[in-house]
Amino acid sequence: MSVPHRAPTPVLESRRSPLLVFAGQSNRPLAQAICDNLGIPLGDSKTEKFTNDNLIVHYEESLREGDIFIVQTFSYPVSDSIMELMLMIDAAKSASAGRVTAVIPYYSYARSDKKDSPRISIAGRLVADLLQEAGADRVLTMTLHSPQVHGFFKVPVDHLSADLVLTQHFKNCVPDAHNGVVLAPDAGSIKRASQIARRLDSGLAMIDKERLSDTEVRPRALIGDVEGRTVFIVDDEISTAGSLVETVNIARSLGAKDVYVAVTHGVYSGPAIQRIAALDVTQVASCNTVLVSPEKMAASGGKLAVLDVAPLFANAISNIHTGASVSTLFS
Amino acid sequence: MSVPHRAPTPVLESRRSPLLVFAGQSNRPLAQAICDNLGIPLGDSKTEKFTNDNLIVHYEESLREGDIFIVQTFSYPVSDSIMELMLMIDAAKSASAGRVTAVIPYYSYARSDKKDSPRISIAGRLVADLLQEAGADRVLTMTLHSPQVHGFFKVPVDHLSADLVLTQHFKNCVPDAHNGVVLAPDAGSIKRASQIARRLDSGLAMIDKERLSDTEVRPRALIGDVEGRTVFIVDDEISTAGSLVETVNIARSLGAKDVYVAVTHGVYSGPAIQRIAALDVTQVASCNTVLVSPEKMAASGGKLAVLDVAPLFANAISNIHTGASVSTLFS
Amino acid sequence: MSVPHRAPTPVLESRRSPLLVFAGQSNRPLAQAICDNLGIPLGDSKTEKFTNDNLIVHYEESLREGDIFIVQTFSYPVSDSIMELMLMIDAAKSASAGRVTAVIPYYSYARSDKKDSPRISIAGRLVADLLQEAGADRVLTMTLHSPQVHGFFKVPVDHLSADLVLTQHFKNCVPDAHNGVVLAPDAGSIKRASQIARRLDSGLAMIDKERLSDTEVRPRALIGDVEGRTVFIVDDEISTAGSLVETVNIARSLGAKDVYVAVTHGVYSGPAIQRIAALDVTQVASCNTVLVSPEKMAASGGKLAVLDVAPLFANAISNIHTGASVSTLFS
Amino acid sequence: MSVPHRAPTPVLESRRSPLLVFAGQSNRPLAQAICDNLGIPLGDSKTEKFTNDNLIVHYEESLREGDIFIVQTFSYPVSDSIMELMLMIDAAKSASAGRVTAVIPYYSYARSDKKDSPRISIAGRLVADLLQEAGADRVLTMTLHSPQVHGFFKVPVDHLSADLVLTQHFKNCVPDAHNGVVLAPDAGSIKRASQIARRLDSGLAMIDKERLSDTEVRPRALIGDVEGRTVFIVDDEISTAGSLVETVNIARSLGAKDVYVAVTHGVYSGPAIQRIAALDVTQVASCNTVLVSPEKMAASGGKLAVLDVAPLFANAISNIHTGASVSTLFS
Amino acid sequence: MSVPHRAPTPVLESRRSPLLVFAGQSNRPLAQAICDNLGIPLGDSKTEKFTNDNLIVHYEESLREGDIFIVQTFSYPVSDSIMELMLMIDAAKSASAGRVTAVIPYYSYARSDKKDSPRISIAGRLVADLLQEAGADRVLTMTLHSPQVHGFFKVPVDHLSADLVLTQHFKNCVPDAHNGVVLAPDAGSIKRASQIARRLDSGLAMIDKERLSDTEVRPRALIGDVEGRTVFIVDDEISTAGSLVETVNIARSLGAKDVYVAVTHGVYSGPAIQRIAALDVTQVASCNTVLVSPEKMAASGGKLAVLDVAPLFANAISNIHTGASVSTLFS
Amino acid sequence: MSVPHRAPTPVLESRRSPLLVFAGQSNRPLAQAICDNLGIPLGDSKTEKFTNDNLIVHYEESLREGDIFIVQTFSYPVSDSIMELMLMIDAAKSASAGRVTAVIPYYSYARSDKKDSPRISIAGRLVADLLQEAGADRVLTMTLHSPQVHGFFKVPVDHLSADLVLTQHFKNCVPDAHNGVVLAPDAGSIKRASQIARRLDSGLAMIDKERLSDTEVRPRALIGDVEGRTVFIVDDEISTAGSLVETVNIARSLGAKDVYVAVTHGVYSGPAIQRIAALDVTQVASCNTVLVSPEKMAASGGKLAVLDVAPLFANAISNIHTGASVSTLFS
Repeated sequence: MSVPHRAPTPVLESRRSPLLVFAGQSNRPLAQAICDNLGIPLGDSKTEKFTNDNLIVHYEESLREGDIFIVQTFSYPVSDSIMELMLMIDAAKSASAGRVTAVIPYYSYARSDKKDSPRISIAGRLVADLLQEAGADRVLTMTLHSPQVHGFFKVPVDHLSADLVLTQHFKNCVPDAHNGVVLAPDAGSIKRASQIARRLDSGLAMIDKERLSDTEVRPRALIGDVEGRTVFIVDDEISTAGSLVETVNIARSLGAKDVYVAVTHGVYSGPAIQRIAALDVTQVASCNTVLVSPEKMAASGGKLAVLDVAPLFANAISNIHTGASVSTLFS
Repeated sequence: MSVPHRAPTPVLESRRSPLLVFAGQSNRPLAQAICDNLGIPLGDSKTEKFTNDNLIVHYEESLREGDIFIVQTFSYPVSDSIMELMLMIDAAKSASAGRVTAVIPYYSYARSDKKDSPRISIAGRLVADLLQEAGADRVLTMTLHSPQVHGFFKVPVDHLSADLVLTQHFKNCVPDAHNGVVLAPDAGSIKRASQIARRLDSGLAMIDKERLSDTEVRPRALIGDVEGRTVFIVDDEISTAGSLVETVNIARSLGAKDVYVAVTHGVYSGPAIQRIAALDVTQVASCNTVLVSPEKMAASGGKLAVLDVAPLFANAISNIHTGASVSTLFS
Repeated sequence: MSVPHRAPTPVLESRRSPLLVFAGQSNRPLAQAICDNLGIPLGDSKTEKFTNDNLIVHYEESLREGDIFIVQTFSYPVSDSIMELMLMIDAAKSASAGRVTAVIPYYSYARSDKKDSPRISIAGRLVADLLQEAGADRVLTMTLHSPQVHGFFKVPVDHLSADLVLTQHFKNCVPDAHNGVVLAPDAGSIKRASQIARRLDSGLAMIDKERLSDTEVRPRALIGDVEGRTVFIVDDEISTAGSLVETVNIARSLGAKDVYVAVTHGVYSGPAIQRIAALDVTQVASCNTVLVSPEKMAASGGKLAVLDVAPLFANAISNIHTGASVSTLFS
Repeated sequence: MSVPHRAPTPVLESRRSPLLVFAGQSNRPLAQAICDNLGIPLGDSKTEKFTNDNLIVHYEESLREGDIFIVQTFSYPVSDSIMELMLMIDAAKSASAGRVTAVIPYYSYARSDKKDSPRISIAGRLVADLLQEAGADRVLTMTLHSPQVHGFFKVPVDHLSADLVLTQHFKNCVPDAHNGVVLAPDAGSIKRASQIARRLDSGLAMIDKERLSDTEVRPRALIGDVEGRTVFIVDDEISTAGSLVETVNIARSLGAKDVYVAVTHGVYSGPAIQRIAALDVTQVASCNTVLVSPEKMAASGGKLAVLDVAPLFANAISNIHTGASVSTLFS
Repeated sequence: MSVPHRAPTPVLESRRSPLLVFAGQSNRPLAQAICDNLGIPLGDSKTEKFTNDNLIVHYEESLREGDIFIVQTFSYPVSDSIMELMLMIDAAKSASAGRVTAVIPYYSYARSDKKDSPRISIAGRLVADLLQEAGADRVLTMTLHSPQVHGFFKVPVDHLSADLVLTQHFKNCVPDAHNGVVLAPDAGSIKRASQIARRLDSGLAMIDKERLSDTEVRPRALIGDVEGRTVFIVDDEISTAGSLVETVNIARSLGAKDVYVAVTHGVYSGPAIQRIAALDVTQVASCNTVLVSPEKMAASGGKLAVLDVAPLFANAISNIHTGASVSTLFS
Repeated sequence: MSVPHRAPTPVLESRRSPLLVFAGQSNRPLAQAICDNLGIPLGDSKTEKFTNDNLIVHYEESLREGDIFIVQTFSYPVSDSIMELMLMIDAAKSASAGRVTAVIPYYSYARSDKKDSPRISIAGRLVADLLQEAGADRVLTMTLHSPQVHGFFKVPVDHLSADLVLTQHFKNCVPDAHNGVVLAPDAGSIKRASQIARRLDSGLAMIDKERLSDTEVRPRALIGDVEGRTVFIVDDEISTAGSLVETVNIARSLGAKDVYVAVTHGVYSGPAIQRIAALDVTQVASCNTVLVSPEKMAASGGKLAVLDVAPLFANAISNIHTGASVSTLFS
């Protein structure tokens, strides 16, 4: 399958209309790209901060009975992003929107999906509850840290996968990708790695890690074989790139040839960009679920690449709006 | 009544025990002062940010069956303060706390209490719903922007008033306060001003304002008489001090003698401190519901004063814990 | 595909149909007037009391999938009015209505909007919760005692204002209204008075009152100046007219010329009519949100006037039904 | 079993304390009798009406953590009784009551327990939902019109039966009651009649009725045999006594000897007292779940009798408070 | 009225489309018959059991925005039937169905409609809550054990009656049915018996039973007269036929001529078929709400008959779908 | 740590009392063992089936204010097990239990934790919602299929791990376990395998599998090295043992020495026992979360072993009851 760069023009008939797409402040370029794919303008809304740091959102056009999609990714500053989204949902509902879909390309709190230690919050569930309390009628998201997070929501969720995009990207970069090895940085990412390995018809390997304390994790072993082969590292997200550096170094020390990295969410926080610039890796790609600034692109020394998933989101929105099946979009 | 500087050590008998007070990051000195008044240590908890800017909170001691109070004021960064509080509430509930009371000295979103324009959120209600969804069993707060915000909560609320503290402060500053005039900066604060005027047995005046556009407000007139008299300006909060500067200038231009200002919540954002330093006013006092940094205190040129309300909160917590009446605390 | 940038002007087309307006027993003339404005017949329903004083409501026509509006004002006997409305909502929902909007021209419990004393109910919130529990999908009301009461509802509320109607009425009565003074009977009504003063381009004044006990309130002072000027007294409602008599007398004693009174809700209970008949006032006007009987009109000695707000409600209902914006109706 | 006229003073130990019994306006003598049986004073509360007919309730003593029972029967004016109860529940919850039990001796809306015709409300369920939304934690009631109404509540219900009281009353009146016949006025009361017949070891008969229209019901036949025998008519309630007159007349026309009537709830509305005074019946007894005024007692010509169920309620309240089993109270 | 054997082809216009009817495993022939009456194919779904006995349901076609009806009767194995229905409802909702109606021809737990003894569940209410929690938007059912069970549901319920079908069946079997007697097996079924007696213009009789213990019930008397007359026994359901055998034997011993039996739900569990085969009765008829296997039909010695209610369900579904009134279907 | 075979007799002080443990029908021996560890008798309750296959549960002792634990594992017949548990919870709540904890040693629907294909239910979430709707206040369970399932519950969950028990078992069987290899049968169990490998200080390996269709899965490769080494296969559950056979065969074909298997939940359905009897494996152990019948034990040819986790459950129940921390029980 080739990911369409522009959705085929759907006949947008729906019981709720009009179709309106709004965006919070966290990733307006993605929202604009989605609207471009849909052939509609981005909805007119305004977010400000009062002088006491309270957020205030305001829609500049009528939403009555409309089919509203609000695009907001959970990137820095995450708490503001979540609060803004909830205010937008609530304002839309009280302005008599017909249906409100929260479009959350990167649901950051999916990482808080279990009780690793006592007396913490399973925040992935809490935030799901909050979004529903605020009034979200459905959710559209991509590559949750674990697929079970889908079940944290009571409302319908459409959960897009970037696997096809990542796989196609590797194939474009490395013609004989089937001779390579997909390397999972830890046990938690082995399922995703295994699926991409099958799509590439390549090998599979994994780093076995050991948690020494709350903050220290130590690699125990690389299970599988990477010597002399092109290595494809896949994961759901990169933040400070600390784990990535370690994974690449182990692969290198065991004789890996080229190393390609592709993840869904490129958060690139703290020292990430410097680390990647210095890393012995051919390329690090991420989808545009999280906005990567031009400054970061430049500072990476040309190593960063961004893959466009706006067509996937546009298709999903179109199908949700018209009642077509979303499940046919990714297979 | 004289506000007790230290609550008498209560015999803390309760159906839920132990009594535990925890604090978020927004105003730990106030939380510590409350605990000092209660004669108990501040509870041991930890809040961190993951590298993707997600918050994580962790309690370092058992909460099972305990009577938990979490002190968190909604000051800058407000969205983080709210998210942290909700995570703490959720973690406490799932750690089997017996009851969780959110202690919110400054509930900033109380200002968003009505629909001034279409297609906005009544965020004061939304945040109330979110806190209850997160698991708050009750709320303890001080000087809501309007008293109706109390009704945004379904769970019991104890709503403390700083009026006695502010009144006593004026009396301490100005022995013949009854010859002065309490000036309300706008129609919204006339009720509070009227109550303090009665307590001081003083006069009352008000600025009538006109909203020219979404962002511009123009004073129309000062109703009442301030000439040659000491003026007491009271309000619920000061943020950039823009409105305060205007009010003081009008009072001065109409012949006011000395001007004293006292508010419950001293947010002091943006240019507030510079403005106050340059303002023709004797003193600007606020309660410690919001933390005022030593830097701000210094930069104000000695004009800022802070009034301690920790004893009020400690008494309220003690009475809630033991089932005594909170209503007897402030009258 | 081209998504339409502007919806074609709808001829009362709606996703829910038919549009049906029913009425409880409390103000059927207003309901009939609303229907006349809409050009539809009043829906056929019946309310009776069983011999044990239970209410029973029955719809005489099908409601399946319909867009149902139930007009019920909260006037004497108020508890019956509320119970009847809740029974009508519940019966409509279980008869498969598509959407039920409670049209409450006078929401009497809005006066119970805060905790004036401990151990009372904030009944304005309680009744809001009950109406939603009964199944109300939205609410349409006019001039809530305080605008914050809007936030007591979780469902969408359209909150109409009678300010334009009242202002126009004053202009009709007094050509040079801009030379007059709008007088607020207490601090709670100063905001409303201030807005009407701006519309009339007139002066503003207020009575400062002091609560001596639970039942006694004493005026402290009139802030502003009324001498020799036409006085416009505005408020949200008049019940026994006790406060009105006092306000008029103070204005008169301070040299007011003519006195005109206009309020949204004319409850006129107990001695109100006799008091008004004997009062030194030119006219007392109220909107038809509460039904004023012909007997009362006659007994007032020609002083009562009624202003018709049925067109405002009809427009709002029409716009809600077709998904047009209600916010454009009043500005 | 002999119904105790005074409960043995219980040692009231409970996890929630103190035990407090309050009463609305509908049947304060019963509430006082219950408190007398419990050996505690009736709680101090006040209900008033504002001048706009709004109800306001106020507790005059602290309820914090208390085990609160509110006695309110649903008698004329029923809507006021229900609203007052809901306000009392809500005020108690927001005043931090530990648990609130609604004690509803006569739950009038139990008669609205099914859909006899389309487009009506099953009001018995609606009122149950409203009471729970207002905050009722449990319900204590007596002789619901049908036992299934118990299931309309989600919260625990203790459903007392007056059968023992009624049976004992018949035995006291008629020593050879086992030679009599219990007569059910219609099919709906046959189960209750059958149970009392078994307790009396007497015969059983029933009137078969036919509904001709919404308002007309015609007796078709008396099934069973009453000739020459003492007839005991039992039912859950009497309102206008129209059905009772008919039942007595049929029994008489078929040769019944004496006729005794006993019901749980004596509503006696409209022409009931005159009808009973004129009726060929020895006695009509009801429990004090509904207050029967001295005027009615007198006007009945000595035919009315009242049976005291306060001890049953007192025992139930005591057992609920201490966690003893209520089920042992009535068997 | 003659029950239509095939609904007239409706013009299925609706705001939710398409109309889709699915079925669980419990009574697929009925679901197929309903679809035949509607002129649409039965929806394509699949239910399996995992090897750990977990149920898994899967829809093989898109449900987005559709008007979904799921036919599932609560027959053996009942727990599987309920779980399967809840899984189908939940899967439909999360697959974005527009509305989900649970079609439950036989709601077995309606028998658990009250508290016969302490410390049991009113399971009829519990199962209603569970179905709504799973996502049911409405319910369509037939002949609930008691009509009050309707009120256990908060969502709209259409409650079909088989009375017309049973009455017509008796008339078909016995031309002079009006000379017969309808016999209610116990007090609980007297209302249903009375209604059918009126439709047949026949006599009425009833067995008065006495509960000796939890498991033993003893007949006390037959009230009314059956000697020499054709007896029609009606009830809501037959399971082991123990009560039926007893009722027939009493009727026979008192001289009944022919005995005809007709019930809505023919569960026929345990020894039922053998008992019926041996019973001195002309015929036992039941509706196809519960599937009666060909083996049972054969083993009954020709005594069993099945009455088709698929047309009633088809009409109700059609009317629900198009928003027509269901109440006109049965009168 | 050595798992205690009997918990030290706790001093059971608690705010809710008494502590009562009841059991459904699915695993009464485990419930009895838990009670033996706690030193209390198993609570007296009764479950029956009505003749129409409805379940009825009945408590034979008072539960008022008690701390109730209901032990019910989700084993065959699973739907009955779930329904019975929900009926027991509901009956306990309506009998005024102080708190109800559902003790579910094996939560079978945890396997339905994500959307593998469109239009299915995430049944693990649905069942969690149903249990909470039925009234469960908390949940105690062991080894959920994925740890994220914890987050499907809103109420507090204590999630016990059998890892220590399994690890200790391997050490008991194989003194030099650190020379062995823990083998994960698929990617989903790699995390659990990795943790046990660290506890054993052994190697780690995994089978990479490929899903060919909905029902077919094919092993692609064994990642890691098992040649000549003792292999420990761990998983959360065994049902038909199909996957186990395959895993063992692959390990054998690659030169594994001895093979030991240990899982938490031994479901052993269908051909499992025959397969295990014929398998080239030393021993297959499971915990007593699911009851393994003596017949199965015998038929396995001595290969099955059962590990007792009743002490873990007893300790957890004791700590929940007294408010001690459960988190200290397993580390």
